[in-house]
Amino acid sequence: MHSFDELVKEFTKRFEVSHFPTYPATLYEPGTYFLGIGGKRIRPILCLMGNELFDTITDDAYHVAIAIELFHNFTLIHDDIMDEATLRRGMQTVHTKYNKNTALLCGDVMMIKAYDYINKIDTLHIKAVIELFNKTAAEVCEGQELDMDFEKQASVSFTEYLQMITLKTSVLLAASLKLGAIIGGAGEANCNHIYNFGLNLGLAFQIQDDYLDAFGDPNKFGKDVGGDIRQNKKTFLLLHALEVATPEQRTMIETLIHTNPKNKVEMMLQIFKDCNVDAWANQIKEDYLNNAYKHLESIAVTASRKKELSDLASFLIQREY
Amino acid sequence: MHSFDELVKEFTKRFEVSHFPTYPATLYEPGTYFLGIGGKRIRPILCLMGNELFDTITDDAYHVAIAIELFHNFTLIHDDIMDEATLRRGMQTVHTKYNKNTALLCGDVMMIKAYDYINKIDTLHIKAVIELFNKTAAEVCEGQELDMDFEKQASVSFTEYLQMITLKTSVLLAASLKLGAIIGGAGEANCNHIYNFGLNLGLAFQIQDDYLDAFGDPNKFGKDVGGDIRQNKKTFLLLHALEVATPEQRTMIETLIHTNPKNKVEMMLQIFKDCNVDAWANQIKEDYLNNAYKHLESIAVTASRKKELSDLASFLIQREY
Repeated sequence: MHSFDELVKEFTKRFEVSHFPTYPATLYEPGTYFLGIGGKRIRPILCLMGNELFDTITDDAYHVAIAIELFHNFTLIHDDIMDEATLRRGMQTVHTKYNKNTALLCGDVMMIKAYDYINKIDTLHIKAVIELFNKTAAEVCEGQELDMDFEKQASVSFTEYLQMITLKTSVLLAASLKLGAIIGGAGEANCNHIYNFGLNLGLAFQIQDDYLDAFGDPNKFGKDVGGDIRQNKKTFLLLHALEVATPEQRTMIETLIHTNPKNKVEMMLQIFKDCNVDAWANQIKEDYLNNAYKHLESIAVTASRKKELSDLASFLIQREY
Repeated sequence: MHSFDELVKEFTKRFEVSHFPTYPATLYEPGTYFLGIGGKRIRPILCLMGNELFDTITDDAYHVAIAIELFHNFTLIHDDIMDEATLRRGMQTVHTKYNKNTALLCGDVMMIKAYDYINKIDTLHIKAVIELFNKTAAEVCEGQELDMDFEKQASVSFTEYLQMITLKTSVLLAASLKLGAIIGGAGEANCNHIYNFGLNLGLAFQIQDDYLDAFGDPNKFGKDVGGDIRQNKKTFLLLHALEVATPEQRTMIETLIHTNPKNKVEMMLQIFKDCNVDAWANQIKEDYLNNAYKHLESIAVTASRKKELSDLASFLIQREY
């Protein structure tokens, strides 16, 4: 069994090649630029780990892993256009460095390229792979649309937000694992368990991300603490607070959102604490993580094969803050 | 064998169904709206005709025909964003009726849906179908990028323009026919002949379109004659004129382009005539059409099976103006 780091090395070797023709450079060079920005490559590695859970890693798993990473980058390029983001991992986004039209087309052609890699795999699993890949791709688009819709909506329920974040981020993590498992010959029950492991792990990670943005130790947390609060971002914490707050607290939250006072972050954090949002967030993160582990345990392979996935989950989700 | 009109009827029955889920309506309703605008459905019908040339039309041919039409509509939605077009077939474009972000995502999800239909076909042909579909899809993106590039370029050679227009419009017509043929079990030689029939027919049609825009009878030609000239559109006619013009004529063309005088259309047409652009256009249109027919004749099936395709070519390309 290979560790995450070992697989990143091997994947990188196979991914950092030229995926596109040279002509027209105006179309393909931007795609090569964006892939060169790098990334943690979590999704393709999950595909490889899902594969190795059931079998020795095959070339087909690498083909699908590359397809997943190309698909993920396609969504980033298009999301950056929609969000008008100028930077991604500290580098210029495609539409900023080039222009919006080129970024649009460059995303389109990257998506098509993803299907080229899928088309390399053995016919035996191709239909199941395309079916899950397409379902997931459509869900990611749905998640992005809901995210944009929610930005314009005055109120969003916790359940709606949960569904949006599941579609926008967790389904691709879950599907990456399951795609690897399908190629590894896993049966339906095992495929479903690994999918649900990924789905729950993704949600635990997202809740942790929201938590750390508000309550994290600025010295340990890479990002600027309180950024979500300053930007009025709808997060698990804010939406839960709005649901459990007293009428007075709710009025205060809304006032903070609309008036942007200097001490907004501290005041919002105080309300969050008064509403026990911090303890609640830790609890549901634990719940999702435990659910994830339960599904991992239920997979019908020896425990030793699961160690790397279990270690990855522990690495992604720190239990102490 | 079925006529184009008969196939349009049958295709429409199968295409005018709901292709998308209902939620989120903000994502899927725009796609349903755009497909409802209609269109001539030439590409999917070419797929069915390519299929019937070799076999009784199968359900798989319909699946691929639907995929082709969805792909074509995806390109139209994204092209309309890039070209900032407000109308398409007299109706509002998606980004005008909704917004650019929704149009972008709505195109993305339509493309994914196209692969859903491809994934319905028998495993026997799925790899060959995806390979050609992907190759063509990438080429259409390349054509669109080159078209945008050329708009910004001071000079474009006839050869460059020919390559662009081939990629942007002809390869999809050619591939539609070949995809049907692949599903019909056609061998490589026959597949190549039908592809080249489509490619040459597409170019003949495009040249005719450029010709009619300049020299067409306004009473017979649906569009406003001279529109391309007024908009300084790079066309086969203009690019050829620039290549064969005397230095004086070239200067005059460039002056007309930059000064937009009232009698621009008449003056440009006079230069075109002086340079024999009209006779040249008719000649190369004939050449492409004859090439198309030669490839059709070379296909190893009885002449009676080719009649509908031959009739379609004659219908699309009128030999007298």
